[in-house]
Amino acid sequence: MKKDDRKILLAHGSGGNLTRKLIEEVFAEAFRNELLAPLNDQAIFKLPHEKLAFTTDSYVVKPIFFPGGDIGKLSICGTINDLAVGGAEPVYLSASFIIEEGLPLDELKKIVASMARTANDSGVKIVTGDTKVVERGKGDKLFINTAGIGIVRDSVDLSPAAIRPGDVIIVSGTIGDHGIAIMTHREGIQMDVPVDSDCAPLHNLTSDMLNAADGIKAMRDPTRGGLATVLNEFASACGFSMNIREDDVPVREAVKGACEILGFDPLYLANEGKLVAVASKESAEKILLAMKKNPLGKDAAIIGEVKAEPKGKVLLETSIGNRRILDMLSGEQLPRIC
Amino acid sequence: MKKDDRKILLAHGSGGNLTRKLIEEVFAEAFRNELLAPLNDQAIFKLPHEKLAFTTDSYVVKPIFFPGGDIGKLSICGTINDLAVGGAEPVYLSASFIIEEGLPLDELKKIVASMARTANDSGVKIVTGDTKVVERGKGDKLFINTAGIGIVRDSVDLSPAAIRPGDVIIVSGTIGDHGIAIMTHREGIQMDVPVDSDCAPLHNLTSDMLNAADGIKAMRDPTRGGLATVLNEFASACGFSMNIREDDVPVREAVKGACEILGFDPLYLANEGKLVAVASKESAEKILLAMKKNPLGKDAAIIGEVKAEPKGKVLLETSIGNRRILDMLSGEQLPRIC
Repeated sequence: MKKDDRKILLAHGSGGNLTRKLIEEVFAEAFRNELLAPLNDQAIFKLPHEKLAFTTDSYVVKPIFFPGGDIGKLSICGTINDLAVGGAEPVYLSASFIIEEGLPLDELKKIVASMARTANDSGVKIVTGDTKVVERGKGDKLFINTAGIGIVRDSVDLSPAAIRPGDVIIVSGTIGDHGIAIMTHREGIQMDVPVDSDCAPLHNLTSDMLNAADGIKAMRDPTRGGLATVLNEFASACGFSMNIREDDVPVREAVKGACEILGFDPLYLANEGKLVAVASKESAEKILLAMKKNPLGKDAAIIGEVKAEPKGKVLLETSIGNRRILDMLSGEQLPRIC
Repeated sequence: MKKDDRKILLAHGSGGNLTRKLIEEVFAEAFRNELLAPLNDQAIFKLPHEKLAFTTDSYVVKPIFFPGGDIGKLSICGTINDLAVGGAEPVYLSASFIIEEGLPLDELKKIVASMARTANDSGVKIVTGDTKVVERGKGDKLFINTAGIGIVRDSVDLSPAAIRPGDVIIVSGTIGDHGIAIMTHREGIQMDVPVDSDCAPLHNLTSDMLNAADGIKAMRDPTRGGLATVLNEFASACGFSMNIREDDVPVREAVKGACEILGFDPLYLANEGKLVAVASKESAEKILLAMKKNPLGKDAAIIGEVKAEPKGKVLLETSIGNRRILDMLSGEQLPRIC
């Protein structure tokens, strides 16, 4: 890409000539597809007559470039993943930008290229969008919102309310990578083994899982608040107890080390390329096998079971054999992680 | 509503307990519907098997409360309107909040109540959402993104590329109200006759128009950049000339007066409850009649015609009989108007 020294001006958000040029040169060019091309205020399309999933997330991660990704890649993966864990095949995304005046145009182009690459690799299209510019000091470089539409097969009906005692809890890989990657990069902490964000689109993994067996009750991607928060959401929704074994939860050594030094608990750290699933006991091995065959699920593991008691709670069996309740966090562990 | 002295904390964006409480007490309570209620990361639903419209906009208007509306009402109307002018009946919206730490919870609640009221009055449901919090000084009180899905009847197929010489140009009412309302309020300018924003959902008006006759070629809502910008977009898309008569464009006296004092041109001012349509000559009277029967179209007027020349340009015939080209603006007239 040729170096571009221009910066974003307030006028890029005016709706006039500069907005038009920015849209045509940066967004429409990178996201090119036949639905976006007319640059109307809405995209119009037909979809198969099945259930649709609809989701949205705004991304305010700081910094906007980090090891393993950037806010653009994150904004595509995160919304794909919210569709995927609902059992949907992601199809169309919207992309809306709130840019702080002064953002180097080159940085915006890099992020847009990263979005385009991630969307393209994932088989989803960015079909509609919006651009706003706020004054210097009224934003923070770049916030991105993506909304997404996916198609859910009629046979798929996931809900944490369907979770029952005896079901097993599966996690798709090592936890805490995204949280530690952002944190150490943000704070300039040097690590012997640097940790990259796990930021990745999970729809092929969820598709493999849904194809492998019928017993999946619920899936969720443990982003902000991490594994412990998702398990608490599941426990609240079904009224039963999520019991997990600390030793069975996959955590990279480097993440463990960083957590010990910095005083974080990996169970609460954000992930951007992992999912937690609850499935019937009979289906669990088939699902696990299918996950392990997918590169994004190679470290998948059964980490616990659903029990009747304690109702609505998450129970952790620690490495030394103690049991303790894992609550939701009340404070903020790491702001602006996604 | 009981006075609430709490302020938004960073921890409200943590994904933990405070996020959950904020979602349950503020958003889920106000937007209550069966698709949002499970508070999953995605809403799942069936829609009739017709064409769908999908759109998104981020709202960064400043100030967040203004005469005639607030950022919440605007965020619902704006996205409804982007669907409506595509010929769609709006059905489901997403709502995503980027909140600056320190925002009084009471202001957030007022805005959310305004969104809920507008959505409810418009027959649309907010079915999925997201909340992020950024540090003080890294945002500006509140940015809202809404994305929307609407249903387009199979018989409807609007596109500015279908505009032809001989077609007529219709505007649905007085222009410039939103721009002047925001501007005068922001700058503390006292006006003899205060102007309220025209912020309103236009889907019933567009439905009336589509029911009245078949000849509508294209519709667009003239927000940022105003009427002149939309006409330029139409002219570029079809390659013909949009010719309008200054005297036929409805502008409130108060808006005219404010424009004269402040040096603005109403043709470039933002509107949030108006639309511009181009229709075949034969259908124009029927459409205009249908518009005038709707309160949001009572001041509708035919303001000009499409001509073959000058190709791709907008031509204004002024009150004193001169003709001049109306270009797109290259600079920023009023930042953060929507």
